[in-house]
Parts: sequence; C-alpha cells; structure tokens
Amino acid sequence: MGFQEREVISVLQQIFATTDSRLKVGIGDDAAVVSTQPQSIITSDMAVEDVHFKLEWSSPFDIGRKITAANIADILSMGGKCDYLTASVALTGNETLQWIENLARGMKHEADLAGSLIVGGDIARGPKIVISMTAVGSSLTPILRSGAKIGDGLFLSSLTGWSAAGLELLTREISINSETAEKALAEFSAPTLDYAIDFSAATAMADVSDSVLVQAEQIADASGVQIEIDQVAISLAAEFAELAALADELKVDIFQWILAGGEDHALLASGVNLPGIRIGSVIAGSGISGVDTKMTPVSWSHF
Amino acid sequence: MGFQEREVISVLQQIFATTDSRLKVGIGDDAAVVSTQPQSIITSDMAVEDVHFKLEWSSPFDIGRKITAANIADILSMGGKCDYLTASVALTGNETLQWIENLARGMKHEADLAGSLIVGGDIARGPKIVISMTAVGSSLTPILRSGAKIGDGLFLSSLTGWSAAGLELLTREISINSETAEKALAEFSAPTLDYAIDFSAATAMADVSDSVLVQAEQIADASGVQIEIDQVAISLAAEFAELAALADELKVDIFQWILAGGEDHALLASGVNLPGIRIGSVIAGSGISGVDTKMTPVSWSHF
Repeated sequence: MGFQEREVISVLQQIFATTDSRLKVGIGDDAAVVSTQPQSIITSDMAVEDVHFKLEWSSPFDIGRKITAANIADILSMGGKCDYLTASVALTGNETLQWIENLARGMKHEADLAGSLIVGGDIARGPKIVISMTAVGSSLTPILRSGAKIGDGLFLSSLTGWSAAGLELLTREISINSETAEKALAEFSAPTLDYAIDFSAATAMADVSDSVLVQAEQIADASGVQIEIDQVAISLAAEFAELAALADELKVDIFQWILAGGEDHALLASGVNLPGIRIGSVIAGSGISGVDTKMTPVSWSHF
Repeated sequence: MGFQEREVISVLQQIFATTDSRLKVGIGDDAAVVSTQPQSIITSDMAVEDVHFKLEWSSPFDIGRKITAANIADILSMGGKCDYLTASVALTGNETLQWIENLARGMKHEADLAGSLIVGGDIARGPKIVISMTAVGSSLTPILRSGAKIGDGLFLSSLTGWSAAGLELLTREISINSETAEKALAEFSAPTLDYAIDFSAATAMADVSDSVLVQAEQIADASGVQIEIDQVAISLAAEFAELAALADELKVDIFQWILAGGEDHALLASGVNLPGIRIGSVIAGSGISGVDTKMTPVSWSHF
C-alpha cells in the first residue's frame, strides 16, 4: 500500500484548489456549492482498468485526461460549456501516491483546457481501478441529436480514426518509429478535444465516442432522416493521406478506423456551412447510406 | 452473461422515465438537460462490491437504496434539496437482467422519497460491481460544517448505531429472531433518511456517514469550537433502550455503535432548540470532550 487516504485527500485538495468565483464551497464539506445557470447539462462516464484503459499502455496523466475529456465531450456535443466535474475513483491500494497525483493532474489539465473546475468526488477501495466522473455544464439552447434537417451537411470537427489506429498498434504490439504512429498512440491514450471549433450553428450534434457510423445512425434515427456518408469527401481531408499511409503499412482498411473506430471524441454535427470536415449529407429516408456493407458499424458493447 | 447492454438501457429508460417538468432532455442524448437554481450543490459517492456491500447480505433493491441515500444525505446535510442524480454502474456480466432492474428500482424508490430525478449515468464492465452516483441539489443558504457557535446544542436527527448493530449481526453470523435485530439489519442494508426533520435553523450540519465522533470532530475543527458529547442525554433517547438490549445480548458497548459506528446517514447539527435528539453542547476549546478515551473515534478508512 503506497499511500494513506488522508495523504491522498490532502494532495487532491492542493491540485484542485481554485480561487474561481464560481465555486462557493469546495472540497472538504459534505458537498460542493457552485453558481449555476437556469439550465444545466449533466452527464456521467465511467472507465474501468483493463476494459477502458491499461496501466501498461497509458500513463496516469493520460488516463486522467482521457476520462475527463470523455465527460467534457458529452457537454460540448450539446453545445454547452463544461463548468464542473466530480471524480470518484476506486483504487486497489497498490498505487503510489505519485501515480494518484499524476492521475489527478491529468484530470486538472483537461479540465483547465475546458474552463472546468473539479469540485468533488470520492475515493474507495476496489479490485481494479475504476474512475467515474460527472460533468455539469450549461447551455440555454442545447443542441440535440434530433434536429438534423434534410439539406444539411454532416461535419466532423476533426478526422477520426486516430484512436483506433493507436489501439491497433498497441493490440498487435507493432512498434513503428514515425510521427504518424506517435500521433495515433497519443490520440488513443488521451484524445485531443476540439475546444476551438464553432459548431454553435449545428442543427444536431453528438460526441464520437462509439464511432462515426453509430453516432450518425443515432442522429438519423432521432431526427427521422437518412445520412449519406461520402467516402470521397473524407479522403480529401487534410490528415487523410497521413493516416492512410499508416493504414497501408498495417494492412488495414482506413475507413474501418475512421467510420467504425470510436473513442476519438471528435464532434459530429449536421448543419449548413459548418466548419470542420464535410463527410456527408442529410437526405430523406432513414439509416445510413453511401458506405459499403462491410463498413456496417460494429456496435461496440461493454458485454 | 444474463443480459445485453441494449436490454439494460431499455429497462433503465422505462424505470427512470418521468414527466417531471424539471427535466428538459432525459436519457438518450449525450447528456441530460435540467432546470437549475442559481446555486447548485454537487456531491459524488462510490460503493464497491465486497467493500461497501456484499451480494449475500443485501438485495439489489437495498443496495440501490443505500447508495442513493448516501448521495442524497450529503445534499440534505447542506440544508439542500436533492433534485437530480446520475448513476454509473460497473457490472461483471454475471448479473441477471432482473437483478439490475431491482438495483435500479431501489435507486428510483429512494430518489422518489427525496423528490429527486435520476437523469443519466453509464454502464461499464468490471471485475466487481461498482456503483458511482452523483447528486445535484440546490440551496440558497447552504449550511456548512463551519458555523457551530458556542452555546449551541448538538443534535442528531435520529438515534445512530443501528447500521453498526446490523453489520455486527452479519459479520458475526449471529441470527436473532427479534424486531430489534430485524430493524438493525434493515438499517444496515438501506438506512432510513430523515426527510421530515426540520434542521433549517442549524448553524452547522454534517451527514453521519463515518461516525458521530468523526463528524462532530469535523464540525468542531471547521468551526473552531469544542463539542462536548453527553452520554447520559443519549441514553434518554426513545430508541436507546431497544438498541441497548441488543448490545447487551451481543456483549457490545452500545456507545461504540452509536458514536463510532457510521453509515446511519442521520444528520448531525448544531443550533439552538433544534428537533431530534440533543446529544451534546458546543463550548469553547477544540476537539471532542465528554467521552471515554476508549470511545476515541476509530477513523474509518478505505485502505
């Protein structure tokens, strides 16, 4: 056992300390007290050791970044701003205090990028590390999955597939010494969220945590439209050639990564003249069209 | 594997369905959208199988009630109302759909008692069941631990010790066929929260999740006062004789249960003429007085 609970709490209080005026009462009482807008957006996401991350694949800093990004992405995908996060963590007791500290610093790093405060949480003992976070954000006009309209384009905030490429390298234990491979590994360990992209004019939006195909299908279903994916348009995206070279080297169909990969936490949005990469169109009908049947979404499932 | 993820989500959507106007967007999009007050209270609590609960000791309904009560109690102890809850659950895959349904029904039961809505969460696979909940409540004038004043009395919303008595029966595998023993077992499985008690005039308040002594010490430290516990006053409480009979039968010091037991989720408050059971006074000084040294809080630790 590398630490005492009291030490951990003391370190966390220091890491998450803030003078931000939104926080009225911070860590130390029964609950945190924060200022809120008339309408809040609430989401929770859980990550389990050896299911969502492996200790030999990712640093604690990156694990902290990734689960925090996953929560924040769900707020961004509603057109919201993420204000507050809580982090509950089951630890085995074999971690060092430094490992826990780096996990917390990864959370803080990603929270800072989003302008979010980590205001509370819990620590428990468990047989594996389990990290559960909840994000509370705000938006007066949330963007739902149900608003896509015929005539809209379908846009990605950035090219997906990088996380799947990184997972492929790790799973097949292939070591490639290139900037492209390093980028794929980095995106798998902790995806880069597109905080700068302006999708405020989107008619529908979702976070690409499962895969582009799964999330596009959810938008199509919720909106009562068909979404036509345009693989040629995707192949013109700036980073496509770079990722395609890696796919060729690994003898993988790049569209399997881009469309069915998941865990990139890019934003998928419908609308007119949105920024980002145009990857398709919203048309009359239902479901998804324009992709080969072999591209059928392999719906990712925990069980 | 007794269920498919899709089935579980469908059952949960039915159980947590609501027409409550506070909920703008419910389960099914990236996040929930709810109406909030200008000031929110946020707290998270995690429960791990074989650490916080055992499947052979508690029904899924009671496990759901208990973790929900633990979260709600932290909001009540700030003088707040619990509006929203999220529930993230790691499952081993060996549970039946009915087991999961009963867990969710237990959560819903307790949430209903508090007037709270379960608005989201996550399901993941894990080596043990881990339940993580987050509560979002509201109060314009939260009651902190730091407000106790010299001259205040110290009050409990109800007699503590029942949960510790239940744990003792289970740990020592003692079977006693009496209403008192049944009450102790029931309180351990799922504590009864005191939703009716009016502690709005309290100067300081905490939820008795660790123990009366631990929480009284936290109030004393935060408020810069001493808290004098009055064991004679406690012994005059209505349920004391009943619990004392069980303690005698098990040859346990009843004050060990009442003062150092924990997990009753009663409220501990300082103030003048509060309802509930008066168990002490706020005086000048620091720390706790009036209890034998053998009663020194055994600070409960996960590790």
